[in-house]
Amino acid sequence: MRLLFIGDIVGRPGRRALKENLPGLQRELDIDFVVANGENAAGGNGITREVARELLASGIDVITMGNHVWDHKEIFELIEREKRILRPANYPPGVPGVGLGVFETRGGVEIVVLNLAGRVFMPELDCPFRVADHLLEQLGDSPKVILVDFHAEATSEKMALGWYLAGRVSAVCGTHTHVQTADERVLPGGTAYITDVGMTGPRDSVIGVKKELVLSKFLTQLPRRFEVAPGPYQFNAVVIDIDDETGEARQIKRIQNYE
Amino acid sequence: MRLLFIGDIVGRPGRRALKENLPGLQRELDIDFVVANGENAAGGNGITREVARELLASGIDVITMGNHVWDHKEIFELIEREKRILRPANYPPGVPGVGLGVFETRGGVEIVVLNLAGRVFMPELDCPFRVADHLLEQLGDSPKVILVDFHAEATSEKMALGWYLAGRVSAVCGTHTHVQTADERVLPGGTAYITDVGMTGPRDSVIGVKKELVLSKFLTQLPRRFEVAPGPYQFNAVVIDIDDETGEARQIKRIQNYE
Amino acid sequence: MRLLFIGDIVGRPGRRALKENLPGLQRELDIDFVVANGENAAGGNGITREVARELLASGIDVITMGNHVWDHKEIFELIEREKRILRPANYPPGVPGVGLGVFETRGGVEIVVLNLAGRVFMPELDCPFRVADHLLEQLGDSPKVILVDFHAEATSEKMALGWYLAGRVSAVCGTHTHVQTADERVLPGGTAYITDVGMTGPRDSVIGVKKELVLSKFLTQLPRRFEVAPGPYQFNAVVIDIDDETGEARQIKRIQNYE
Amino acid sequence: MRLLFIGDIVGRPGRRALKENLPGLQRELDIDFVVANGENAAGGNGITREVARELLASGIDVITMGNHVWDHKEIFELIEREKRILRPANYPPGVPGVGLGVFETRGGVEIVVLNLAGRVFMPELDCPFRVADHLLEQLGDSPKVILVDFHAEATSEKMALGWYLAGRVSAVCGTHTHVQTADERVLPGGTAYITDVGMTGPRDSVIGVKKELVLSKFLTQLPRRFEVAPGPYQFNAVVIDIDDETGEARQIKRIQNYE
Ligand SMILES: [Fe+2]
Ligand SMILES: [Fe+2]
Ligand SMILES: [Fe+2]
Ligand SMILES: [Fe+2]
Ligand SMILES: [Fe+2]
Ligand SMILES: [Fe+2]
Ligand SMILES: [Fe+2]
Ligand SMILES: [Fe+2]
Repeated sequence: MRLLFIGDIVGRPGRRALKENLPGLQRELDIDFVVANGENAAGGNGITREVARELLASGIDVITMGNHVWDHKEIFELIEREKRILRPANYPPGVPGVGLGVFETRGGVEIVVLNLAGRVFMPELDCPFRVADHLLEQLGDSPKVILVDFHAEATSEKMALGWYLAGRVSAVCGTHTHVQTADERVLPGGTAYITDVGMTGPRDSVIGVKKELVLSKFLTQLPRRFEVAPGPYQFNAVVIDIDDETGEARQIKRIQNYE
Repeated sequence: MRLLFIGDIVGRPGRRALKENLPGLQRELDIDFVVANGENAAGGNGITREVARELLASGIDVITMGNHVWDHKEIFELIEREKRILRPANYPPGVPGVGLGVFETRGGVEIVVLNLAGRVFMPELDCPFRVADHLLEQLGDSPKVILVDFHAEATSEKMALGWYLAGRVSAVCGTHTHVQTADERVLPGGTAYITDVGMTGPRDSVIGVKKELVLSKFLTQLPRRFEVAPGPYQFNAVVIDIDDETGEARQIKRIQNYE
Repeated sequence: MRLLFIGDIVGRPGRRALKENLPGLQRELDIDFVVANGENAAGGNGITREVARELLASGIDVITMGNHVWDHKEIFELIEREKRILRPANYPPGVPGVGLGVFETRGGVEIVVLNLAGRVFMPELDCPFRVADHLLEQLGDSPKVILVDFHAEATSEKMALGWYLAGRVSAVCGTHTHVQTADERVLPGGTAYITDVGMTGPRDSVIGVKKELVLSKFLTQLPRRFEVAPGPYQFNAVVIDIDDETGEARQIKRIQNYE
Repeated sequence: MRLLFIGDIVGRPGRRALKENLPGLQRELDIDFVVANGENAAGGNGITREVARELLASGIDVITMGNHVWDHKEIFELIEREKRILRPANYPPGVPGVGLGVFETRGGVEIVVLNLAGRVFMPELDCPFRVADHLLEQLGDSPKVILVDFHAEATSEKMALGWYLAGRVSAVCGTHTHVQTADERVLPGGTAYITDVGMTGPRDSVIGVKKELVLSKFLTQLPRRFEVAPGPYQFNAVVIDIDDETGEARQIKRIQNYE
């Protein structure tokens, strides 16, 4: 099977990038399943009911999230109802939503999507390594294809999780830094890995935000209300080929499209 | 002119990568000047007199550093004497060494190298934006070709400095995360930019360190003495073409060689 | 002369504590000058025009601030006009307001108030040690009585600044943690020191905030909109006796009043 | 029963303070049980076999630790064998040592000591709130007297744990900042609380370290090898009176002795 994983979709330019790129990619690449990180889809922060509907209607099968998951209040109700939205699984027990879902590809193959968040330079969640162990053990042997979105800052934590899950999942795709890394590879055991898939959003920006606002923040240390930058978009994603029978990844390729 | 900037050289595998790759690249690509980040060149942490000599003898013209600059005590004496080693310029006044040097390429063109360090998720140095302003102003108009190594963690701070210096320097190359990013481009005004040049060191590792040690650290939170990983290397760099007259970058290309 | 320095005033309970305690203290202790940290005076976050007027009308001579200084937009205009409000002096140049003011006590003695903020576990401001050096040098020899509010998190940074300024200022009073420390003393050279003056606000709270909200935050890691806790107040301050001629502190005493 | 809890013992001056103060306090105050935080007892960092023996021989019944627990390699073997040394209970499962011990006072009363560490501005351990819940549940109803050493940086996290455990344990005593706070009180439900017990170590220092070294660190941002400061000591502790039958604290009093 062939998966498409799309990096953090940021605001309106990100959604436009999605709609202008996904149909063509699906056609040309014969994609079986589409996962996208949507934590910045609504105005740069979080997601709303309407934006979630828009993303799902545009062809995304599962939306993963990150540290911005709770930015809009609607998410608390939405994430309980809409099983195609996942939040990091290593939030404490009792938090709304779940971090793991079992889905089915267009070809009828079972696929597990697991969302985790890092802890280095980030909020104090439960240990993502041990939560991964626990959830994979619960899954047992039957689902072969498992995709992990690891939403984290530090390259060390991301590569560590990649090696930790190598041979146990089909892919570990990093998100959160909004910059695509060039280290995609298939780790021993058949686990596709990339430190960060990048951002689908406004290109001439600082990780999606108007650059003037970010610069002003760094120069003055005054609070600045961030806004999604205008202008042409970039579309960042990876395509992963996975053996349906074994769940092993055979290939991972980066995609960068520009407006 | 054509510059080669090599990402953080890590330990023995990194130095082997350097020696096995640099001569060929210089020949094939007709490189005029070579800058490398050497903050992890000696056993993964800092640099020594001997390792510095080895790097310079291997064809590196200028060595930049980062947060690991002071890891070996010899650096305090070495950096005062060896003008081809720079440390981040935004350390407080009075600290040994300098952060900016004026050099000459093989073709006889003046080139300025400026090393800066970020502050987000890093030690409390002076503002890199204002230190850059100050040093560029001091330089005045005469040197046209200016290369900046911005050693920083956060993608936001790195892209912000890229935009801040766009049109004022020839290149802003990020280092520190040890993972090459795929966002190289020439910003308006002729400034080559990449968020991180990556690492020249052991490939099957967590940012250069034996993966078992890093995993053990994450799983137990116990202190672990990190060691450079064994095994095959990766060589990460960028090649930048710059107009000698205007100092404007025309092109930036990523290089990844593997053992 | 005798100074009263009041720890971070938090919301309505803090302002009530002020009004119910300050007149009596002034009468009984014959206070010459009153400084209070007001960064949480308006609803727990920042300060407004009206709240500033209320504090000044209640008998406070100078209001110092901290990391919450910019929480209300009105501050940008207010701090330019109202010279009795200071913000940390180590914000970058060009930021509204100032961090040092020269005032006169009821007894006609000149007094300097200097507000600084720490950098450990806090935003990336300029070095408070060097900014203090610079401002004290500018002041020259004439003002003898100098009070420093060091708004900082880490005990190490606070004690370090105390020792650094010992013999050069009359007092270094820490703020920000909202918990009064019991280490008040006069350092050699006649500098009164306390790591934290504490909080003037609701007692049965977590540093001023409704404890249920803070607990929910720690237990779920979900965002919580913090509210000032209701209930009885605590009034935290220090009284400092200073020699008018030399500027040397003779004594520092902690005050804790409860509703 | 009457407990004595001694704040972080730092190096030789701290051990001297212990030996010169504990016997007198035991005699005068009729202490039933002595707990001390020993994470800095050996040269300012960690603990050794010999120093542990010295502390226990000096009259300490239980030694709690903190983020410095692993600084000396001997601890790994020592903590498995010596049940009177506890490390924070919220390290991941499988780490050497334990964080909770059941002991008996001189008067034959059962007493539980629980060591926990905070996560705000500190390493990524498991949630101290949930680990406390879990361990208290395991204990069941029989032990009435329970003392918690919460080794943490942020006042918010410490007060939050105090309120969280109020009515469920006899005392929550904070450690780690090395500065005694003046907020000791008995919370509703009979839980003695103090944000930080302080430090037993060299007085004229920056939290125990030679002040010149810490100042040099802040001024230059260069690495400095910290050394325990010489000179006179301070002895910081709290005395807590607890009802043997109910486990409720009746009183908490701060102690500060000086050389
Ligand atoms: Fe994002
Ligand atoms: Fe994120
Ligand atoms: Fe490095
Ligand atoms: Fe680095
Ligand atoms: Fe405050
Ligand atoms: Fe504050
Ligand atoms: Fe300590
Ligand atoms: Fe500690």
